[in-house]
Amino acid sequence: MKRSIVFLLASFAGLAAHAEEGMWTFDNPPRAAIKQAYGVEVTDAWLKRLRLATIRLEQGCTASFISRDGLILTNHHCAESCIAQNSTAERDLLAGGFKAANREQELRCQAQAASVLVDMQSITDAVQAAVKGLPDADANKARKKELTRLEQGCEDASKKDARTGPLKCEAVTLYQGGQYWLYKYKRYEDVRLVLAPEAAIASFGGDPDNFQFPRWALDFSMLRAYEAGKPAKIAEPLRFNWSGAAEGDAVFVSGHPGGTDRLLTTSQLKFQRDAFLPLWLLRYSELRGRLIQYGKQSPESLRRSQDDLNTLENSIKVRRKQLDTLHDDVFMAQRASEEAALMAAVAANPELKATAGTAWDDIARAQQTYRNILAPYTFTEGAAGFNSQLYFYARALVRSAAERPKSNTERLREYTDAALPRVEQSLAADTPVYPDLEQVKLTFALERMREWLGPDDQLVRSVLGNESPDSLAAGLVNGTKLADPKVRLALYEGGQSAIDASDDPMIKLAKQVDPVARDMRKQYEDQVEGPTRSGQEAIAKARFATLGTGIYPDATFTLRLSYGAVKGWEEKGKPVVPFTVLQTAFDRATGRDPFRLPQSWLDAAPSIDLKSSRANFITTNDIVGGNSGSPMVNASGEIVGLAFDGNIHSISGSYWFDERQNRTIGVHPQYIRTALEKVYKAGWVLKELE
Amino acid sequence: MKRSIVFLLASFAGLAAHAEEGMWTFDNPPRAAIKQAYGVEVTDAWLKRLRLATIRLEQGCTASFISRDGLILTNHHCAESCIAQNSTAERDLLAGGFKAANREQELRCQAQAASVLVDMQSITDAVQAAVKGLPDADANKARKKELTRLEQGCEDASKKDARTGPLKCEAVTLYQGGQYWLYKYKRYEDVRLVLAPEAAIASFGGDPDNFQFPRWALDFSMLRAYEAGKPAKIAEPLRFNWSGAAEGDAVFVSGHPGGTDRLLTTSQLKFQRDAFLPLWLLRYSELRGRLIQYGKQSPESLRRSQDDLNTLENSIKVRRKQLDTLHDDVFMAQRASEEAALMAAVAANPELKATAGTAWDDIARAQQTYRNILAPYTFTEGAAGFNSQLYFYARALVRSAAERPKSNTERLREYTDAALPRVEQSLAADTPVYPDLEQVKLTFALERMREWLGPDDQLVRSVLGNESPDSLAAGLVNGTKLADPKVRLALYEGGQSAIDASDDPMIKLAKQVDPVARDMRKQYEDQVEGPTRSGQEAIAKARFATLGTGIYPDATFTLRLSYGAVKGWEEKGKPVVPFTVLQTAFDRATGRDPFRLPQSWLDAAPSIDLKSSRANFITTNDIVGGNSGSPMVNASGEIVGLAFDGNIHSISGSYWFDERQNRTIGVHPQYIRTALEKVYKAGWVLKELE
Repeated sequence: MKRSIVFLLASFAGLAAHAEEGMWTFDNPPRAAIKQAYGVEVTDAWLKRLRLATIRLEQGCTASFISRDGLILTNHHCAESCIAQNSTAERDLLAGGFKAANREQELRCQAQAASVLVDMQSITDAVQAAVKGLPDADANKARKKELTRLEQGCEDASKKDARTGPLKCEAVTLYQGGQYWLYKYKRYEDVRLVLAPEAAIASFGGDPDNFQFPRWALDFSMLRAYEAGKPAKIAEPLRFNWSGAAEGDAVFVSGHPGGTDRLLTTSQLKFQRDAFLPLWLLRYSELRGRLIQYGKQSPESLRRSQDDLNTLENSIKVRRKQLDTLHDDVFMAQRASEEAALMAAVAANPELKATAGTAWDDIARAQQTYRNILAPYTFTEGAAGFNSQLYFYARALVRSAAERPKSNTERLREYTDAALPRVEQSLAADTPVYPDLEQVKLTFALERMREWLGPDDQLVRSVLGNESPDSLAAGLVNGTKLADPKVRLALYEGGQSAIDASDDPMIKLAKQVDPVARDMRKQYEDQVEGPTRSGQEAIAKARFATLGTGIYPDATFTLRLSYGAVKGWEEKGKPVVPFTVLQTAFDRATGRDPFRLPQSWLDAAPSIDLKSSRANFITTNDIVGGNSGSPMVNASGEIVGLAFDGNIHSISGSYWFDERQNRTIGVHPQYIRTALEKVYKAGWVLKELE
Repeated sequence: MKRSIVFLLASFAGLAAHAEEGMWTFDNPPRAAIKQAYGVEVTDAWLKRLRLATIRLEQGCTASFISRDGLILTNHHCAESCIAQNSTAERDLLAGGFKAANREQELRCQAQAASVLVDMQSITDAVQAAVKGLPDADANKARKKELTRLEQGCEDASKKDARTGPLKCEAVTLYQGGQYWLYKYKRYEDVRLVLAPEAAIASFGGDPDNFQFPRWALDFSMLRAYEAGKPAKIAEPLRFNWSGAAEGDAVFVSGHPGGTDRLLTTSQLKFQRDAFLPLWLLRYSELRGRLIQYGKQSPESLRRSQDDLNTLENSIKVRRKQLDTLHDDVFMAQRASEEAALMAAVAANPELKATAGTAWDDIARAQQTYRNILAPYTFTEGAAGFNSQLYFYARALVRSAAERPKSNTERLREYTDAALPRVEQSLAADTPVYPDLEQVKLTFALERMREWLGPDDQLVRSVLGNESPDSLAAGLVNGTKLADPKVRLALYEGGQSAIDASDDPMIKLAKQVDPVARDMRKQYEDQVEGPTRSGQEAIAKARFATLGTGIYPDATFTLRLSYGAVKGWEEKGKPVVPFTVLQTAFDRATGRDPFRLPQSWLDAAPSIDLKSSRANFITTNDIVGGNSGSPMVNASGEIVGLAFDGNIHSISGSYWFDERQNRTIGVHPQYIRTALEKVYKAGWVLKELE
């Protein structure tokens, strides 16, 4: 979509006309544009093989199969939670790295699952029929019910289909409601850690270097998918091309970009700029400070907070640059101009005018409502007032007890039959809960809820009573038994009567909050989401009618293909070379985190030609968070890189793609090979890859 | 200024035409408007008496003389630093309050000074003559030199004038350069603490209640000015009217509002919205988190961090609401429209066009430059990369050694002869420095400098070398001797040779940073400040020519008069009553900070008629930060309140005044009387007030 509009506006915005923009669905790749740019013929067979080797890691990343025995390649930061959860004060796998000498030593990632997209089915007609003629709020409910119904039908059918076996079916909304699909996944719920380098080299440069290039991060790890206790059998895994790609070579990224906002209306962008992002950044900048200061108390508190902090700092950098983009007058003027062009086209066409004429105003009104309820919604239904793992367990237990007795289509969408297995996996996962860290987070959450809702807010008063946030959090964290997965599972299995009978303080808190949170959710769904969805669907249809279907949808954490090439960019008038070499990392190392090289690499250095060993590289691919761990393949489908980041300009990719500056950063295959061969002496892995 | 333009635009913006807007200079009060609104005749004698009883506290507040023996009334939060500096782990005066039983027990506020404005002299012609015809950067330098020269001449003359005695002379820029004045102050450098309530009642409700109304804060304290070791003799102190003012009564606020931005151009507003405020809020929200978490380590760390944290949280609330205002499309459209109207008037007048025709574009270009250098400027010259008291001492020593040998007009403005006494007072003040707290702040500063300037920035590399922010900060704080005032004074008196010979690590750091910081300052002054000042002066003249001189200037921490009345407002359709009573505070108390009532009040409660005792009240006065501690007087010049805050809507007063919602919050005299009489049993104070 943006391609066409950008082309029209190229003279205004100064954008190159041939931007290699787009996160394309696998049913609609831009074959002609790829052919024209790189002479590469994208065949159905090539697409299918890539799709079936690409993995969605359910905790928010991408990965790929790289051996017939289910070996998985992804980023270190995508396995970081698993590594942290398998660590203890005595055996810190984040700091020391991990290598399973044999399959018995591989470590279960208890909260992780791996999904492969095996089929896609359009359900646009069914969804549109279900909502036809209904007012916004009713349409919103009817749509959700229909999606739940279709998901359930799909899963039930798959169970009877010997060819596929049981599948996970997820309804997918594309083009802001222009299309609806069922995406069908084969899911591996048993995923294990095989190999991980030390954090010091995996994220060399740490947060200061994050979203920067040049870069030298060995951000890779290896997992393995298991089925029925045995390594999963994969027919066509991807193969490495160890020499990577040359400057100018075409590179394709297959993965699951989490979300972009390129089709938002200007009123939605302003809501993000004026309300959502400031609140988010204020809250999380402060939490960052609290976690950092907590981490300075002892080596163990540092270890405990590291995973949370890394995730948080990454998000803060993203949100900060998103806000910068929305503060860019040139960008906002371009979006306003695109919007005005589409509105004019709608106004000039009586049929479109009848369906979409008021859509922008309807959405703007809904955004105004959203502003008014943002704080109460965020702190209650959004759980920002209770941000802690133990509360999330409690809420899942309280809500699943209330939802499971309902018919499937009447439930909250996150507790449908299709969704429950992940809820159950999370409740059953025997992952560590650190009471002191929970207290830091929960106290912060309660203090900020009191600040933003006010000390006289009814919920705030009823939750805090005569307690302070500190004393309440201490009582909750020390009093609850929910850190124990057996306790959680007993409550889950006991259902509503077990919840009613529980005197666990965290369960009682979740019960106390639930009615208020559900009320806010209803206000949000009826008054914000409903009219916004209706307006967006109408605009989506107008967009297809005006611009055709040769456009790509916003990212939705579903499988996408991006094309591009190895290429530098100009930063403040100076060219940035698209490859880095290891020598520079050694030159830059200070011996102190996050610029410390681990001993293993210092020891191995004499055996490595540092000056010629490529470390990281950049391409023009259009990706976004969620693409982390994506295989970067050449025209032959061989792995020539492992996507792990974008440069600082890539963050504005949430809202637009600027081919001049937006770059994907990958780990070079040479770097991985050197690590396996010379540093970690993991010859058996190399053998498995052949 | 805004009155006229607002009147023109009233139908557009929906503002009441008779807004009681304005922080008026004492040479130009809006006598006619006051007369018309309240029938009060503002006489020269009334103004003079109020002016000579109003005090500027040099650390950033207002106060007033309330006895012939130099007794001073101000807010508790204006004395908070002094109270904290006189506290120890064993004797916490913030928590426990303070009452000097006699004058010998009064405690010196070593870093504080009190100034009274005794004369004002226009110097507009001299300054305009000094810069005439010069290009922007040169004009900027020439202007500063002329201001220094005039200040020095004024101070020298006062020393010879037996009638006044030595005065402090400060150049004041009003109307963004439309007028220049010399303000002449009698300064008291010996200020002592006489009485302070417990923090729990002084800031009852803490940060959650800050900028909120209804409110119940006993935010008052008493100081005393000394001259030559004796209580200062004051001819006409202000007197309390213990019954306060009734709803609708006229109320005047005399004080020193710190700064407003009501005359900024839209490019300047956008700079604040897009660059300055986001960077500020990100940094300080994180620091807030660090200080809070540090404070949770022990009661003593909580005590040590409290003063810093209170100041910080107040500022965060201000900055956050300022950003909200700048994100308000209605506000921005109004300002753009006002600007367009003035630009049109300029374009239509050949004479104005010649002087001010390019002013808005010139300022916009300078703002663009400011955006580009904001981060390096903030972290170096702005010292955000080295934020700690010990570094500030080091910088003052390094810079004063370099500046003092220069001729007075060649120096940085903060080291001129007129400015040095305050530098010396700060270096000599024997106030506590807490090494652990310094380390928290300095580590934070270094970490963020590395984040924002990048680990490969030249200064960052040269400062950090192979150290981490943690290890460097620890080495600096533990290695420096600058916590000792005797060491500081020795270095100050030793001048450049002492600095050169010093191997104090903090002095060495300040020397290392200084050339880079001075270079950034020069870039800022030549490329941002210079063209901005020139443009603003041109616009100011055009504004006078177009709108006349019956307008008020932006606040500049100089003496101003505001008029208004006791009046509620409507919040979400519901009326807010303008008075609160003590009973509600008792109903609201939880026993936990910040909603804890001190034992003294719980004990005294039976002797107080809580239901009828007024606590706080609100008026329509137009004030801003810096006005804290201002006397609120009635038409007879009697104290009817003590300004300590504004409601949440008052924060947008930085940019505009909305009479419908903007309210000043004051401590009611009854509350102070009850405290003195029934709670703190300070009968001798009451006697002194008679």
